[in-house]
Amino acid sequence: MAAREPEIIRRKDEMRKWSRSMRAQGKTIGFVPTMGYLHKGHLSLVNEARKHADLIVVSIYVNPAQFAVSEDLSTYPSDFNGDLKKLMSATGGVDAVFNPFDLYDYGSGRGGSGGEGRENGGRKEKVEVSCADETGGGHDTWVRVERLEKGLCGKSRPVFFRGVATVVTKLFNIVEPDVAVFGKKDYQQWRIICRLVRDLDFGIQIIGAEIVREDDGLAMSSRNVYVSPDERQKALSINRSLSEAKLAVERGQMSSRELRSSVIQAIEEAGGKVDYAEIVDQETLEEVEEIKAPVVFCVAAWFGKARLLDNIEINI
Amino acid sequence: MAAREPEIIRRKDEMRKWSRSMRAQGKTIGFVPTMGYLHKGHLSLVNEARKHADLIVVSIYVNPAQFAVSEDLSTYPSDFNGDLKKLMSATGGVDAVFNPFDLYDYGSGRGGSGGEGRENGGRKEKVEVSCADETGGGHDTWVRVERLEKGLCGKSRPVFFRGVATVVTKLFNIVEPDVAVFGKKDYQQWRIICRLVRDLDFGIQIIGAEIVREDDGLAMSSRNVYVSPDERQKALSINRSLSEAKLAVERGQMSSRELRSSVIQAIEEAGGKVDYAEIVDQETLEEVEEIKAPVVFCVAAWFGKARLLDNIEINI
Repeated sequence: MAAREPEIIRRKDEMRKWSRSMRAQGKTIGFVPTMGYLHKGHLSLVNEARKHADLIVVSIYVNPAQFAVSEDLSTYPSDFNGDLKKLMSATGGVDAVFNPFDLYDYGSGRGGSGGEGRENGGRKEKVEVSCADETGGGHDTWVRVERLEKGLCGKSRPVFFRGVATVVTKLFNIVEPDVAVFGKKDYQQWRIICRLVRDLDFGIQIIGAEIVREDDGLAMSSRNVYVSPDERQKALSINRSLSEAKLAVERGQMSSRELRSSVIQAIEEAGGKVDYAEIVDQETLEEVEEIKAPVVFCVAAWFGKARLLDNIEINI
Repeated sequence: MAAREPEIIRRKDEMRKWSRSMRAQGKTIGFVPTMGYLHKGHLSLVNEARKHADLIVVSIYVNPAQFAVSEDLSTYPSDFNGDLKKLMSATGGVDAVFNPFDLYDYGSGRGGSGGEGRENGGRKEKVEVSCADETGGGHDTWVRVERLEKGLCGKSRPVFFRGVATVVTKLFNIVEPDVAVFGKKDYQQWRIICRLVRDLDFGIQIIGAEIVREDDGLAMSSRNVYVSPDERQKALSINRSLSEAKLAVERGQMSSRELRSSVIQAIEEAGGKVDYAEIVDQETLEEVEEIKAPVVFCVAAWFGKARLLDNIEINI
């Protein structure tokens, strides 16, 4: 099949105009937000979106607001031309790529909504995220999913989900999609987006797409490029131990403590450093002591320079 | 002119469907969110909206999330039939009234967006707003305009603007208007909504409507019913002293301290209790010591059982 060139859109107003003109023609829009450096995991999200909508928009934007100043924003990998080629290879291609320069730049002078991006005069607040202007007229609005954002990754990355929820709200308002697809590899993120959409009454359907793995079982991630071949062999302990935990539950082991110990031990014996290994309720993400309802076993672990995420749903 | 009956809509999905079908016909939608118990101030917002849009939606909903448990949610005045009559008397009438029962009720069972309203099993958090379900599956998402929400009314009502920003976001997502009108009587609220719309990239134009006053100068408010005739005479000191402050600026008095002293003294001499009397930048709402740019002088003061708001813009 001939690869189709997507329309590349850089400006918010043009993006919204494109979406509204397509919807006026009766087309439905599926949306896949990404930070670029695409892999097969992202392409599976595109394919999933294609099942639910007439047209597909993929955004490529590394969101500064979800990185703490100590984190890897400046070194986050990117390859825009490579990304375009990959998207063109997806079945059916994609219809538009939204690649804004800066979603937090509101310009100077009074805008249509009465806001004003002042450069001076504002009291300087402590900058806690890698996001430009913290003066009086700068970006000031944050969406928080207060209970769901606290646990799991929220413990070691306190501003992360605030940044994710805010940028996703912004992107939803710019792209105005009918359906949006998120990967269940980032399980907490997916649940936070589901809750946000419900709680803020967005007219958008959220689809959770299953984890895509490399042939050896490693969950696909843009951060896998940070992992050396040797570390990678060791990192397979994450998925392997999670699969074993699921089998153990199926054999009747319902104690979270026992199951967590086994996974932590397996990862640490392989040379990894566990950030967390928790068994939580699939909806509320609250820790469970004994498995009585559907849970998800979530792990974050460091191998070398890479903090890798993985999880497995256990439906009993 | 014959009064026109607005369509009365109770359900979120029906509201969105109505808006989308109107927009598909090329109509623009103007939106006026209210908590009911309407007065001429609200009708001026409707008239303002009519200048900017083909169709007018008014919402009538007392938002529990903006009341602290100690506040007057249960006694907040209401008169739905009276409200309808008033809306029908507005020039051109209104096209739809959105009067939902509970915007924070997400039902039980898994919804389209993956959310689930659980009644049990969740850890019970301290309820700090008059909003139903704080269990694991309950409403969990809050929109905060972090710097703008802190001063003025935010000092004595710490959850108020979180509740306002969240319910307005919900209403925007349900009604999907092109234009929304807010009164400048609630100045901080208006600026917060402007900032929220800019920062979250809503495709909605916000109009600030000027304060409407009773013949004697009192700013119109649903809470004026709490004020006795005697207290009301005394409460006129707010508007009178603010007007005098503006004249003083025009005569060259630029010191906030002096201007504030005069207003506080005038209100207290009349028997009011000043919650705050502050001169702030019109955009950032940051206090200014000396007036060098456009400011707004904002007052909240208690007369009897009523906490009354008023303000005056001073453009130099």
